[in-house]
Amino acid sequence: MKLGRIAVKGPDGPIPRLVVAQPEQQRVIDLLTAERGRLERQGATHEAALRLATALFPPSMAAAIALGDMFLAAAAQAVESADDEAIVPLASMHLLSPLDPPLLRDFSAFLQHIRAMTQRMGQTFSEELLQVPFYYKGNPSTIIAPEQEVRWPSYTRVMDYELELGFVIGKPGENLTPQNALSHLFGVTILNDFSARDVQGPEMKTGFGPAKGKDFATALGPWIVTPDELDLGELTMLGRVNGEEWSRGSSATMTWSIAELIAYASWGETLWPGELLGSGTVGTGAGAEHGKQLQPGDVVELEVAGLGVLRNRIGQPEPRGWAPQRRPSQTNGAVTHEEGGRAS
Amino acid sequence: MKLGRIAVKGPDGPIPRLVVAQPEQQRVIDLLTAERGRLERQGATHEAALRLATALFPPSMAAAIALGDMFLAAAAQAVESADDEAIVPLASMHLLSPLDPPLLRDFSAFLQHIRAMTQRMGQTFSEELLQVPFYYKGNPSTIIAPEQEVRWPSYTRVMDYELELGFVIGKPGENLTPQNALSHLFGVTILNDFSARDVQGPEMKTGFGPAKGKDFATALGPWIVTPDELDLGELTMLGRVNGEEWSRGSSATMTWSIAELIAYASWGETLWPGELLGSGTVGTGAGAEHGKQLQPGDVVELEVAGLGVLRNRIGQPEPRGWAPQRRPSQTNGAVTHEEGGRAS
Repeated sequence: MKLGRIAVKGPDGPIPRLVVAQPEQQRVIDLLTAERGRLERQGATHEAALRLATALFPPSMAAAIALGDMFLAAAAQAVESADDEAIVPLASMHLLSPLDPPLLRDFSAFLQHIRAMTQRMGQTFSEELLQVPFYYKGNPSTIIAPEQEVRWPSYTRVMDYELELGFVIGKPGENLTPQNALSHLFGVTILNDFSARDVQGPEMKTGFGPAKGKDFATALGPWIVTPDELDLGELTMLGRVNGEEWSRGSSATMTWSIAELIAYASWGETLWPGELLGSGTVGTGAGAEHGKQLQPGDVVELEVAGLGVLRNRIGQPEPRGWAPQRRPSQTNGAVTHEEGGRAS
Repeated sequence: MKLGRIAVKGPDGPIPRLVVAQPEQQRVIDLLTAERGRLERQGATHEAALRLATALFPPSMAAAIALGDMFLAAAAQAVESADDEAIVPLASMHLLSPLDPPLLRDFSAFLQHIRAMTQRMGQTFSEELLQVPFYYKGNPSTIIAPEQEVRWPSYTRVMDYELELGFVIGKPGENLTPQNALSHLFGVTILNDFSARDVQGPEMKTGFGPAKGKDFATALGPWIVTPDELDLGELTMLGRVNGEEWSRGSSATMTWSIAELIAYASWGETLWPGELLGSGTVGTGAGAEHGKQLQPGDVVELEVAGLGVLRNRIGQPEPRGWAPQRRPSQTNGAVTHEEGGRAS
């Protein structure tokens, strides 16, 4: 099943709706509308049908996934009995990001990418990276939709994309093992981890990890596809900029398996439904590996076999405004200066 | 005003309730109960009063803060007219973490701590850290309450605490400046960024930043205190382990101001109400600065003038289970081994 979210017009503004996508028929099924209709035809009043359908198919995909196995069963039932009222043509819909994850971890599961990046930057590959599947945490509040423009913050001149897979957690779990972890995988989507390379570099050098270098935009979509539709070990991954192929890889080259990533994420803490694990960039999956940068107006398309195409256009750089002022070299505590080195 | 959350018994389990704390009177005011009573006395039916009071004071502190200035005004009004039904004695209440932040950034605003840590580890202080106030992102799903036990994941042998301030965002904003940033500060709380030092070290060395070294537990509380009650530039910060003072610092030694941290966080992205910014550890604010470690059963108390005391006991180490297996040195793509080096 392919699940996503669209925005529909409501009296107080746009309302997110969960949909099942049928791209081969150029349409999506609005699950709330389909289920409300099904319940009404079974004798429920409009209000009661709406109440139950809204509880099953809320605006949040993470909240729907938290219903457990019932969510997919209810979605299948709603789709099966959907009438014309529930059908939305692909051409007329406004797509949202398919997921609103409470937490986003982005892993380093493709060592080929990291080796290529360190080589290009003249650095030594850190043997630590062989020990465990390291991750940093992304910013769920700046996840963007397919076709949504990528903001270009004023602090960067070097914009790049990253071709990744996104793994959506379906069930709570902790201290999982690779043997039982895959039963906690709800589905897979495409993730574009847009990166401000000139900022990310110094951030990683300090050891604190990517922050402003990543926090401005992460694209997701177009759909979350359930594992039964996919050969997870052989997903071909493509990246194109303005129609030209820059990236070609495969999930077959993951150094750490999906099961290991899920198990590792759950180590010593609880994973929750709707959390998102990024695979990290596939080998060849970023402009920086080829010495290339994105320009304002560029169109980046990521395509993964079975998952669809995730397309975003790069926006114009924002005007320069305030920027932090460097502290003097010997600073070891408070400094007073015009921008406010004091605590308030 | 001091705001927090408690759990009350409901027919389907515990329900979080927002409270205003009056520690000098050894009590808290349940805001929903107080407001419902106030509305009923003004002629509202029980059901209508409950509906409106629940919308003003929902279980989520972040959702309440998102109401803007109205939240504090409504809280003040509810407290003023609270009757006995709304009063909960401190002794009988079950305290929750005061905040459920959608995002947690933890900064490096006290250079004294970072210099002390690098010196103790025999490393060179990275001059990059003078450029901007770097941050990593924490895990909002493992925030724990005052008095809640700290889990000790099986992957670590070196447990530590970190004495920090937590700054709660009150209003949406982007591309703020230090001149207007403080109007986006809702309140301040104490943050204990528990750290697995033996894991955090390698994580920072790879450049991806703290992950498993921090993700298992972050304590918050006991209250969020609004800035009008505080001298933000002169907050004395203390840390005690089993009653013995290990840490003593002050917000006066911040190398980056609160206003700068907020402005930096909003650079090129939108800050949302309820987001949490950690200050980073104050100088002397961690065991590692003194060559000390925590042991199972230790009690850590963080005290900040005007903010109260945040106390947590360290739990017992969890039993060893699965652990990732190191990849061979030359690995540059998929590896197959018994734990599952393939993608699925």
